Amino acid sequence: MRVELLCTGDELVTGLITDTNSTFLEARLFDLGVKVNRVVVVGDVRPDITHALLSAASRADVVVVCGGLGPTADDFTLECAAAAAGVPLEEDAGVLGCLKERYAARGMSTDLNPGQLRMARIPRGSEPVRNPVGSAPLVILTLGGCRLFFLPGVPREFKALLDGEVLPRIRTWLEAEPGRTHRAFRLLRTVGMGESVLDQQVMPLAPSHPRVVFGFRTHAPENHLKLMADAPSQAEADAALAAAEAECRRVLGTSVYGADGEEYAPVLLDLLGRAKATLSAAESCTGGLISQQLTAVPGASNVFMGGAVVYTEKMKTAWVGVPPEVLERHTAVSRETAIAMAEGVRAACGTTYGLSVTGYAGPGGGTPEDPVGTVYCALAGAGMSTRCERLTLTGGRDLVRLFAASHTLEMLRQHLLAAAVTP
Amino acid sequence: MRVELLCTGDELVTGLITDTNSTFLEARLFDLGVKVNRVVVVGDVRPDITHALLSAASRADVVVVCGGLGPTADDFTLECAAAAAGVPLEEDAGVLGCLKERYAARGMSTDLNPGQLRMARIPRGSEPVRNPVGSAPLVILTLGGCRLFFLPGVPREFKALLDGEVLPRIRTWLEAEPGRTHRAFRLLRTVGMGESVLDQQVMPLAPSHPRVVFGFRTHAPENHLKLMADAPSQAEADAALAAAEAECRRVLGTSVYGADGEEYAPVLLDLLGRAKATLSAAESCTGGLISQQLTAVPGASNVFMGGAVVYTEKMKTAWVGVPPEVLERHTAVSRETAIAMAEGVRAACGTTYGLSVTGYAGPGGGTPEDPVGTVYCALAGAGMSTRCERLTLTGGRDLVRLFAASHTLEMLRQHLLAAAVTP
Repeated sequence: MRVELLCTGDELVTGLITDTNSTFLEARLFDLGVKVNRVVVVGDVRPDITHALLSAASRADVVVVCGGLGPTADDFTLECAAAAAGVPLEEDAGVLGCLKERYAARGMSTDLNPGQLRMARIPRGSEPVRNPVGSAPLVILTLGGCRLFFLPGVPREFKALLDGEVLPRIRTWLEAEPGRTHRAFRLLRTVGMGESVLDQQVMPLAPSHPRVVFGFRTHAPENHLKLMADAPSQAEADAALAAAEAECRRVLGTSVYGADGEEYAPVLLDLLGRAKATLSAAESCTGGLISQQLTAVPGASNVFMGGAVVYTEKMKTAWVGVPPEVLERHTAVSRETAIAMAEGVRAACGTTYGLSVTGYAGPGGGTPEDPVGTVYCALAGAGMSTRCERLTLTGGRDLVRLFAASHTLEMLRQHLLAAAVTP
Repeated sequence: MRVELLCTGDELVTGLITDTNSTFLEARLFDLGVKVNRVVVVGDVRPDITHALLSAASRADVVVVCGGLGPTADDFTLECAAAAAGVPLEEDAGVLGCLKERYAARGMSTDLNPGQLRMARIPRGSEPVRNPVGSAPLVILTLGGCRLFFLPGVPREFKALLDGEVLPRIRTWLEAEPGRTHRAFRLLRTVGMGESVLDQQVMPLAPSHPRVVFGFRTHAPENHLKLMADAPSQAEADAALAAAEAECRRVLGTSVYGADGEEYAPVLLDLLGRAKATLSAAESCTGGLISQQLTAVPGASNVFMGGAVVYTEKMKTAWVGVPPEVLERHTAVSRETAIAMAEGVRAACGTTYGLSVTGYAGPGGGTPEDPVGTVYCALAGAGMSTRCERLTLTGGRDLVRLFAASHTLEMLRQHLLAAAVTP
């Protein structure tokens, strides 16, 4: 099934709002095994909308159209639909009744103004469907062999009509398609591995999995591998996916921290929880990013006890006990300071593990030996010697901080995984 | 000038990521007086990309193409461009040199792998422009009367090349167009004011400014007012904008923290710097969000001394000196604890001001008197009595944390503004 989306509205082509309706619909359709073929966004310009409707209908089996159904002067998508279909607009008694009922229920006048009346005018031969959460109805129109669904652009109404009316119809049609393609998906989320390394590790596997498409996306500091299997039956698609996933996981090892919707911080907190361990963090250059990422997760307080953002030497000593002589001798950005911070925050908070990070995030700072982008991160824990790593990061302050936080957390995750394997 | 955008990538048509590059570009072009005519999004399908390139080029003067320039197997936008133009791909010595230089600077091998080599292959007759923040270059190709710009999809690289290379060229072409419309813009950034309140305050002013369009956008926890003036000359557009802006600023007062590209944290740090004041923060429910937002700004270390993420009662006492009897008597989420945290962190760090925030971010926690969403925030400072406010927030953990951090910082900004007026 070929599906296209058409979104209309000046606000979408002038940068005022980002089109999130498309993302929502694409994800829903993808779950049904349908990859949207094309999304077109045009402003409130009649000939552009009419042309886009005709050309989408000429290519696709289903076109979902979003926006331009409301009562204001710039709402004329159904006019364009009527023009594209060569039919007039006609007032629909059922729609009119629903509108009046809706206004009456809100204590508003049922003597509709011209804008409100326009919402009841739909192309001859089209089918209106009541909108449970708004005024403008869903309108379904057939043009040649293509079915067009017209939905309001307000995200709440768009989603309600999509889930309640549009997707059930599409699902029924899909199930009736002879020889339809069945799909299965897996997103493998990796961290600590560059996109080109990921590609090199994984792409040699692709030829042995002809039913599976390998895709990549960068979501700094992570890189994700997307596997999409395609087969004439669901069982075959699932089996093809499982085989490809197993091989990818084998080559990627512990770089894969999670799959599909799993996110990094909850995964790490869950590992800590299962190890009955607690955590604290002392941050300099990341300035609270580690604490913030962990505490964004509900229930983080069961595991994460405290974080010290120690932006000055004084606070490094006061809060996490870095000896002044270490700071004087080795400076605040050094292996020795990172180690003292990790051990110190662990002792102060009485946690199983302590993490630390100190470095030059830039743009200012740095020394000839430790230029901007140099970061030391350390992990201290019960029954282990404190580990420290030196990183050389690039990409500006935001990325240095992001990768520094990620690498520091990753030291802990890798330690927990190793400890779980060899108790 | 007719401008179209073409975004490519399976991740964009399967709901994995929302296309924010388009929003960014549309807003930038609109600032230049150009409304984008059409945005097309297609997946990683060669014939779809080639067809979309040809049809966009047949309609538009400028097409900006985004995505598919990287080193992985699903990056083939330039192949499609070459097919559309009927020319071969050729290795470009300049691009190759830049790539090797970039990898060498990162201590990586300059013996490029096949994926990396593909980034140096561009359509014959096209012009490559160095990417200052990434590997894949900007490529400019002329097709008939249309100029096509090919940019990487990674937002950071997309934005850098757009601002540095693409928009200056478009601006030059626009300035050469006869009889064009002149535009002037102002984005007024407000905080602490809901969208409907902003709308009610400002919309009564609109009828007296017929040349100016008033628009709103919500960017939690902020709300922005966008003023767009349209006139036959730049001087008239500037004057119309200035008049509307002055009136809006008058009704909005200190809710406006900045204009255009100004962001909240730098504005606040700048106010602190000008007052020769320093700051520390003790956070419970926001978990480091305040520290993180402030330290994301280069030079924050001149003003921000330290932040304590005190997720346990023990750390509230150890790091910011909250007396155990206060915690026992009033609990960790109380006016008394917030005040003790603000005063305590200020004393510990020796700063001019101390901020604190404690509350129930949810979804768990809360009491009948202080349910989830209840937040206490406090400001302590030299020569002032400590202030504390109680908030009742809704919208889930993320939004509660976001608004709690914003409100806490806003207590300080309003205090600094008042202090600057009445010294």
